[in-house]
Amino acid sequence: MVERRQITGFSNPLVKMLRSLRDKKHRQREKRFLAEGLRLLTDARESGCIPEILVMAPNRQSHPLLAELEEGVAAAGGEVIEMDEKLLTKVTGKDNPQAVAGVFAEFETGLANLDRSTSPIWLVAQALRDPGNLGTMLRSCDAVGAGGLILIDDCADPFSVEAVRASMGAIFTTGLAQARWEDFIAWLRDGEGQLVAASLQDSSDYRASPYQAPCFLLIGNESQGLPEAYEAACDLRVRIPMRGRADSLNAAVAAAVLAYEAIAVLESD
Amino acid sequence: MVERRQITGFSNPLVKMLRSLRDKKHRQREKRFLAEGLRLLTDARESGCIPEILVMAPNRQSHPLLAELEEGVAAAGGEVIEMDEKLLTKVTGKDNPQAVAGVFAEFETGLANLDRSTSPIWLVAQALRDPGNLGTMLRSCDAVGAGGLILIDDCADPFSVEAVRASMGAIFTTGLAQARWEDFIAWLRDGEGQLVAASLQDSSDYRASPYQAPCFLLIGNESQGLPEAYEAACDLRVRIPMRGRADSLNAAVAAAVLAYEAIAVLESD
Repeated sequence: MVERRQITGFSNPLVKMLRSLRDKKHRQREKRFLAEGLRLLTDARESGCIPEILVMAPNRQSHPLLAELEEGVAAAGGEVIEMDEKLLTKVTGKDNPQAVAGVFAEFETGLANLDRSTSPIWLVAQALRDPGNLGTMLRSCDAVGAGGLILIDDCADPFSVEAVRASMGAIFTTGLAQARWEDFIAWLRDGEGQLVAASLQDSSDYRASPYQAPCFLLIGNESQGLPEAYEAACDLRVRIPMRGRADSLNAAVAAAVLAYEAIAVLESD
Repeated sequence: MVERRQITGFSNPLVKMLRSLRDKKHRQREKRFLAEGLRLLTDARESGCIPEILVMAPNRQSHPLLAELEEGVAAAGGEVIEMDEKLLTKVTGKDNPQAVAGVFAEFETGLANLDRSTSPIWLVAQALRDPGNLGTMLRSCDAVGAGGLILIDDCADPFSVEAVRASMGAIFTTGLAQARWEDFIAWLRDGEGQLVAASLQDSSDYRASPYQAPCFLLIGNESQGLPEAYEAACDLRVRIPMRGRADSLNAAVAAAVLAYEAIAVLESD
């Protein structure tokens, strides 16, 4: 039987800490982030990530996966907390919170943690502002078999509740790094790797372009696209045809269309 | 010189009406919707859609496109309103509203308005719940040259502020229909058309599948996928390979990956 601490008061320091994790500044200070929902937490556990703190509503439905999660947290020396639904709503900021949430230590996101030999394909996003797009890109990385996502310049926070939610668990399974452009380029050129820009300019058609593994697909900011200097530093610039009035796709959509084409070309070689 | 009405009071009936357009129930009663931002409104104008009411903040930057917009509204018998930024924030629900918004009449969204001979490819979404995904799909329709988006069963409202915003103007340029499944199938089978399911089940690889124009790509609900009976009614079931732990892509991402592949196959025929 796992020991559970009951928390009822809104002014409890733990409740305050949990709430504060919705804010980037506090996440960075605590070096922790929040993930909600049994499915996400189970994906995390199966990937070897156990929350430091597991928070549950008392009126949750019992579930074998939840029991395993509780045991995992207890075995790892973590804490299991019961907190009523109203408090949990305050913590997660959702009207209908899922009955379970976990607090995780943030991962290291240095480039040194990535091993480019593990996958033929990687996504690189520059100044990506929308946390939903960021999470969706992580999810697409997992789906297409990419090694992970590298965030360049000032991007949305990958540990925000929105990004974690949109990743559908991929935050726990997919490589993740954050770097300044100069540091990324230095790291990239210190080994094998083809840098490919998703370009809005004159460039070759994205289909059947000469992709080479490990291939790093670079996607620009949602409204500005890539800086010219960044495009110029790429080994290949490819363009997804725009047949209508719009001049671009959603950034996460463009990344996935490009990644699925690149992996198909690489696999057919 | 276009005549502008000044509105300063929060209790003004027009302000109340504009605010109410953030709510689906009121949009349906008014048969009007709200679109924000000079770029969106310019896209609308260039597609022949002029707002009935144009709302601007007095401290906006002057812009030739805005002047053209004002003239277009006046010429069409619409109304131009100046409203201070604080009021405009209340109307649009955004902290930093763009300095201009427009009220448009909702379009007819019956299937009879679609002409399937105008495009080789169409998107069909079933029970799509997220307005951002819906808007992103409209944007992808425009980009890939699809005829439009057909919404089946209970979907998010395409005229919500979030969907309109995510569409990046494609709400004004792309075909749009809403229908019950039975009515859609009856309409589809009354003419030429191949119905293709984006399936999570055993099915053929989405690449180089035998797509035929006009090709209708059917994407299921974000968490449930497609009902079995709907998949069974399709002429072709295709699967995007999932190489990681996740069992699906984001719905808007899946739609775009599939649409770009289908159009490439159709164009190479």
